[in-house]
Amino acid sequence: MTDESASPALAPGSSLGWRSNGIVSLLTDFGLEDAYVGVMKGVMLSHNDGVRCVDLSHGVAPQAVLQAAWLLAHAWRRFPDGTTHLAVVDPGVGSGRRILVAEDAGHAFLAPDNGLLGPVLSEDARVFELDADRFALPNASRTFHGRDVFAPAAAALASGMAPEELGEPTDDWLQAGFPGPEVLEDGWRTEVLFADRFGNLITPLTLPARLLEGEDWCARVAGRAAPLVGTYAEVEPGVLLALFGSCGSLEVSLRDGDARAELAVQSGEVVTLRRMER
Amino acid sequence: MTDESASPALAPGSSLGWRSNGIVSLLTDFGLEDAYVGVMKGVMLSHNDGVRCVDLSHGVAPQAVLQAAWLLAHAWRRFPDGTTHLAVVDPGVGSGRRILVAEDAGHAFLAPDNGLLGPVLSEDARVFELDADRFALPNASRTFHGRDVFAPAAAALASGMAPEELGEPTDDWLQAGFPGPEVLEDGWRTEVLFADRFGNLITPLTLPARLLEGEDWCARVAGRAAPLVGTYAEVEPGVLLALFGSCGSLEVSLRDGDARAELAVQSGEVVTLRRMER
Amino acid sequence: MTDESASPALAPGSSLGWRSNGIVSLLTDFGLEDAYVGVMKGVMLSHNDGVRCVDLSHGVAPQAVLQAAWLLAHAWRRFPDGTTHLAVVDPGVGSGRRILVAEDAGHAFLAPDNGLLGPVLSEDARVFELDADRFALPNASRTFHGRDVFAPAAAALASGMAPEELGEPTDDWLQAGFPGPEVLEDGWRTEVLFADRFGNLITPLTLPARLLEGEDWCARVAGRAAPLVGTYAEVEPGVLLALFGSCGSLEVSLRDGDARAELAVQSGEVVTLRRMER
Repeated sequence: MTDESASPALAPGSSLGWRSNGIVSLLTDFGLEDAYVGVMKGVMLSHNDGVRCVDLSHGVAPQAVLQAAWLLAHAWRRFPDGTTHLAVVDPGVGSGRRILVAEDAGHAFLAPDNGLLGPVLSEDARVFELDADRFALPNASRTFHGRDVFAPAAAALASGMAPEELGEPTDDWLQAGFPGPEVLEDGWRTEVLFADRFGNLITPLTLPARLLEGEDWCARVAGRAAPLVGTYAEVEPGVLLALFGSCGSLEVSLRDGDARAELAVQSGEVVTLRRMER
Repeated sequence: MTDESASPALAPGSSLGWRSNGIVSLLTDFGLEDAYVGVMKGVMLSHNDGVRCVDLSHGVAPQAVLQAAWLLAHAWRRFPDGTTHLAVVDPGVGSGRRILVAEDAGHAFLAPDNGLLGPVLSEDARVFELDADRFALPNASRTFHGRDVFAPAAAALASGMAPEELGEPTDDWLQAGFPGPEVLEDGWRTEVLFADRFGNLITPLTLPARLLEGEDWCARVAGRAAPLVGTYAEVEPGVLLALFGSCGSLEVSLRDGDARAELAVQSGEVVTLRRMER
Repeated sequence: MTDESASPALAPGSSLGWRSNGIVSLLTDFGLEDAYVGVMKGVMLSHNDGVRCVDLSHGVAPQAVLQAAWLLAHAWRRFPDGTTHLAVVDPGVGSGRRILVAEDAGHAFLAPDNGLLGPVLSEDARVFELDADRFALPNASRTFHGRDVFAPAAAALASGMAPEELGEPTDDWLQAGFPGPEVLEDGWRTEVLFADRFGNLITPLTLPARLLEGEDWCARVAGRAAPLVGTYAEVEPGVLLALFGSCGSLEVSLRDGDARAELAVQSGEVVTLRRMER
């Protein structure tokens, strides 16, 4: 489909661990009803028709930066080294917010500097401020930087350009992680980050297994109790439960049902996990 | 993007009809709001970055095994020989349910042993029980085998490993087909399997055309009549109709409307097709 | 994955500007809940497993031909030359409606002759009537031409067959553009084409910037005023605004909200843009 000479695999790698595999993962709040995502792919393919796009999700709730951060944080290491991760949840589009480009463990990242990458990158990440003017398409809009700025820059990374070639290093970016749990006398207090498709309430609370051993635990949210179990099958259908989910953090679920609908809670709702009295 | 030496096309084919083309079709009830599907693709690409994923659907109703079976049964032969079909609708995840790997007519299949493959495979299929422990990722979760077991096994098939190399042959799997029609004095009784995006009510009833020739027929569901026609245009907008749809089975539709909403029926609702009195 | 000799890049190009890059963009109203789109991809891959499909959107409202036209009109030039654009929003499927194949600026198009391509193609486009019988799969259905006619024809284009090889030239096709604005004494009258995922009301009204300079303007829809601004940030959250959006046409939005829900309007609703009195 493309000349061998234009193949990402033959593009020059960077000197510091970036060697593109030509894959771009895409994470946005654009939804799939419109053509916003398809157009971004068109722009990338116009730059390099060997780019291979993989959708991470486009169903992030509009402007839900922390939900996007959670999805990306738990996804990116599942992709092969050399993948570019493009994340556009961007309430500040058209304002002066900066765009970050980063490299971490052989993966590249592009996202607005709005807190999205804070919980995603490790301490070893190298972070740069994108030279947006250099990558912006001619007549770039003020409302769709996904198409006009992010996509061309992602295509450059996927074509082998090194992150440090896209902008200047920066230490001054939003590095905060997920909201940390509050330690209680008999447990922890955390919050709902978002609900997934199945209505599971996802929190950022992770704990070493040894802290939980030998005791029974119970989560509470919106006045309802959800015993901590190891698998859904440990409770009856229709019963609330809590478990440490497939990403290792505390989730509250309704067996064979939708906990979000049952409890009518929103992002930010308090969740506690406490030792059960015997 | 990948060394020629790592290309699926060059991987050793099996001796019994399996030669991977590197394509994996994906069918789940995971939805697209979250990153579950994207992460599965990341895992497959990490095993072999030449794998090409094609979404069949991720909109199966949660845990609707028969809907998934119907979609896969009517889709897989449309793909080229050498395609791997990965279907994960898996209410029993985390329990002891087995995972099946199969080969049929030069296609490979991976799915839980929960009835999903029963209506899909022909009598000539070769079926194996996946050696799940061998393919499970380290620290596999108990709730997301799509990522931790199915994806690595699918990547192995797509990379050219033969189905018989993934597990031991089995005859003891859930082989039941779709619920069969009941033959009535003047027709047949079947049921609604699911409704599609347009609100068409899909049943598994297929009939040889000769059985219908020379007579007029009428479907009934939820107390409402729907005359059997050849195309939507044979009735007025807003009128119920029945026809043998694009997959060859009986569907009940509302011209320019949504039969599911009009009739307020669910999966399992009885549908009859009877000869009309003249 | 495929023999070099079968690669689209090596297929013979046409004499008049068509040289396939093997990419097919897909635009339908089929949704993603079912497997309709996945099956179309399977059919294309069966014809040529080097075809690369890119989803433009499958969330067009059922049978909303003008919405599809708008999405395609603003998307196709973003893709690289040599892309095939397959658009199936086809209320007339199974009737005698014709199928068009076209070439414009090095891109190829396939769509029903129902007005979808009218606003999309330039005056320089070459338009043909698809010889549907030649491309139809054996036992083609009367309700799913996307699978049985469009997909095989798109695969032929993507494999390098020239548009003029797929049918006879035609001048007699539905060439109307978007509904034109009505010029008022102090502005323009247009209409809502559709609402996007964010609830923005999209109109087809585009204007040269010089017509707007030096004056203040206000849109009105459903009895509500929406001042024309340059970016969302110019009004407070919860306030209606109008702006020329990322595709250059007038949109009415609710800052940090959903204008469609706020105004409860549908496609076809009148929108005016008038000079504000000082």
